[in-house]
Amino acid sequence: MKLATYQDGSRDGQLVVVSRDLASAHYATGIASRLQQVLDDWGFLSPQLQDLYDALNQGRGRHTFPFDPLQCMAPLPRAYQWVEGQAYPSLLQAQDAEPGLVLAPGSGDNLLGACELLRCQSEALDVDFGAGLAAITADVPQGSTPAQALDGVRLLLLSNSVRLRSLEPVERAKGAGWVQSAPATAFSPVAITLDELGDAWDKGRVHLPLHTSWNGRKVGMCDAGPEMQYHFGQLIAQLCATRHVRAGSIVGSGPVANAGVGSKAKTDWPKGYNCIAEKRAMETLHGGQPSTAYLQFGDTVRIEMKGMDGLSLFGAIDQELAPLLR
Amino acid sequence: MKLATYQDGSRDGQLVVVSRDLASAHYATGIASRLQQVLDDWGFLSPQLQDLYDALNQGRGRHTFPFDPLQCMAPLPRAYQWVEGQAYPSLLQAQDAEPGLVLAPGSGDNLLGACELLRCQSEALDVDFGAGLAAITADVPQGSTPAQALDGVRLLLLSNSVRLRSLEPVERAKGAGWVQSAPATAFSPVAITLDELGDAWDKGRVHLPLHTSWNGRKVGMCDAGPEMQYHFGQLIAQLCATRHVRAGSIVGSGPVANAGVGSKAKTDWPKGYNCIAEKRAMETLHGGQPSTAYLQFGDTVRIEMKGMDGLSLFGAIDQELAPLLR
Repeated sequence: MKLATYQDGSRDGQLVVVSRDLASAHYATGIASRLQQVLDDWGFLSPQLQDLYDALNQGRGRHTFPFDPLQCMAPLPRAYQWVEGQAYPSLLQAQDAEPGLVLAPGSGDNLLGACELLRCQSEALDVDFGAGLAAITADVPQGSTPAQALDGVRLLLLSNSVRLRSLEPVERAKGAGWVQSAPATAFSPVAITLDELGDAWDKGRVHLPLHTSWNGRKVGMCDAGPEMQYHFGQLIAQLCATRHVRAGSIVGSGPVANAGVGSKAKTDWPKGYNCIAEKRAMETLHGGQPSTAYLQFGDTVRIEMKGMDGLSLFGAIDQELAPLLR
Repeated sequence: MKLATYQDGSRDGQLVVVSRDLASAHYATGIASRLQQVLDDWGFLSPQLQDLYDALNQGRGRHTFPFDPLQCMAPLPRAYQWVEGQAYPSLLQAQDAEPGLVLAPGSGDNLLGACELLRCQSEALDVDFGAGLAAITADVPQGSTPAQALDGVRLLLLSNSVRLRSLEPVERAKGAGWVQSAPATAFSPVAITLDELGDAWDKGRVHLPLHTSWNGRKVGMCDAGPEMQYHFGQLIAQLCATRHVRAGSIVGSGPVANAGVGSKAKTDWPKGYNCIAEKRAMETLHGGQPSTAYLQFGDTVRIEMKGMDGLSLFGAIDQELAPLLR
């Protein structure tokens, strides 16, 4: 099942069911108007959405319209929890004194649609993208094991976790987490249930490459599967260790990367990068200093994942960096 | 105006208007069922709630019932953003390499009512309370000044930000923020508009003492006003520096403390403490080691603030530490 949220002038938008090929859509009116409602009452509402999805895929939708990602808000435009892990190997991890599973709490009050502009005061803030996967959860009780927590994954989607790298050192020193250095995150047009992935979903990981382009040039083709050090069940179990996690929490993987990234041999790094800081860290490793600049106003970032059949699974995140309107 | 949320078996409960003296209440049915709705559309809905509040205070409520804090969820049982600052002087700040305004993002998916049990796996986690104030915001645009941000305070309430101190060192070393060491936060039964404070609200600060008791013994009587180093406008402006803050965000002050706490002279510290870690830090300063143990199962914490007239402003947070149910 594929779900999206259309802009309608309200804060939470209108839930739509999207066909498997992302060609057409149908308002979920009569079942639920908002995705959070569905997550709050999944057992009752999701079978009704599934029926509508099946009808849509079979061309039996009664009020079908062409799906337009430009009309999308984030599938969950506001989330009660948005936490991002660091699930992939990264040269940046060396900056952390303590190894192991890292989770960074974020803010869910202002999540962006896939094609919304990234608005920023200044390029001098060192604006970086961060292409990753994210899971939207069910209720997951306090103290759940990773296996139990994995059962709490309701939907998957792609994320672009923007970072303002120039603000990170001060916040790192404060040690209380990322606030100003982590502005609004954008999500793919569509969130999907796990069955859409078929065999590509295995033990909490998505075994497919993530395609990331910067100004139209492909910069990342990392496989999101085998080298995910902590799978989604582990990420969620970490989060619910000391408290209940409630339905509609979004848990991100952090930028997808492959282990070769951390290698000194340049040839081990054929699959590119999913955040500029990673590329700069590698440049520093090889040449003593970074040579790639961060995003400039007008730069575009496109993030997409295709299924085994070559079709886009989530639609594409496609954002442009723009100055803040005054 | 005073607002609370009554349990009704749903995730967001039912909005009630509470009389100034906290004696009686009235469902807000017909105006709004949930507090988030009101925050989303404050200009339209809050005058209607104010009319109901006025009627209630004048004994003209039509379906009035006695107000019972035991029936309360958090005023906002789920929030799209919960961030806590460190607005008061603290001996614990010495642990931070970087001084200045610290904000720690938290999770809003599971906020607790004032009298809900604090459930915890083990006393060995070093469970601490944290008595503070919090503001619920309107929409606050990216880049707002502290003065502009201060206009975005819609409601105030009290918070008990529980910390699991034994888990803090590992999370501090990871540098990504508090996840496992910051379990569910509880809030006062009632959230109030600023006019309820009269002259006690001045330039973003509440000039009243916060009363904190531990197992019935008064341990904190700190004035929340003059020594608040960063007022609520500054806290919110820090939060919205690089992104929009949306209505219903909760911004906390962190534990209230008075500057004497940081002094070497024991006599400078007559007003007590609002988290045990602070007390232990002072014991360490004076005696070389902490002597006060953290919370034990069965321990109770009560947090309350009284107005100039001696009446409780927000009702009391009154929680007991209990083992996690399996």
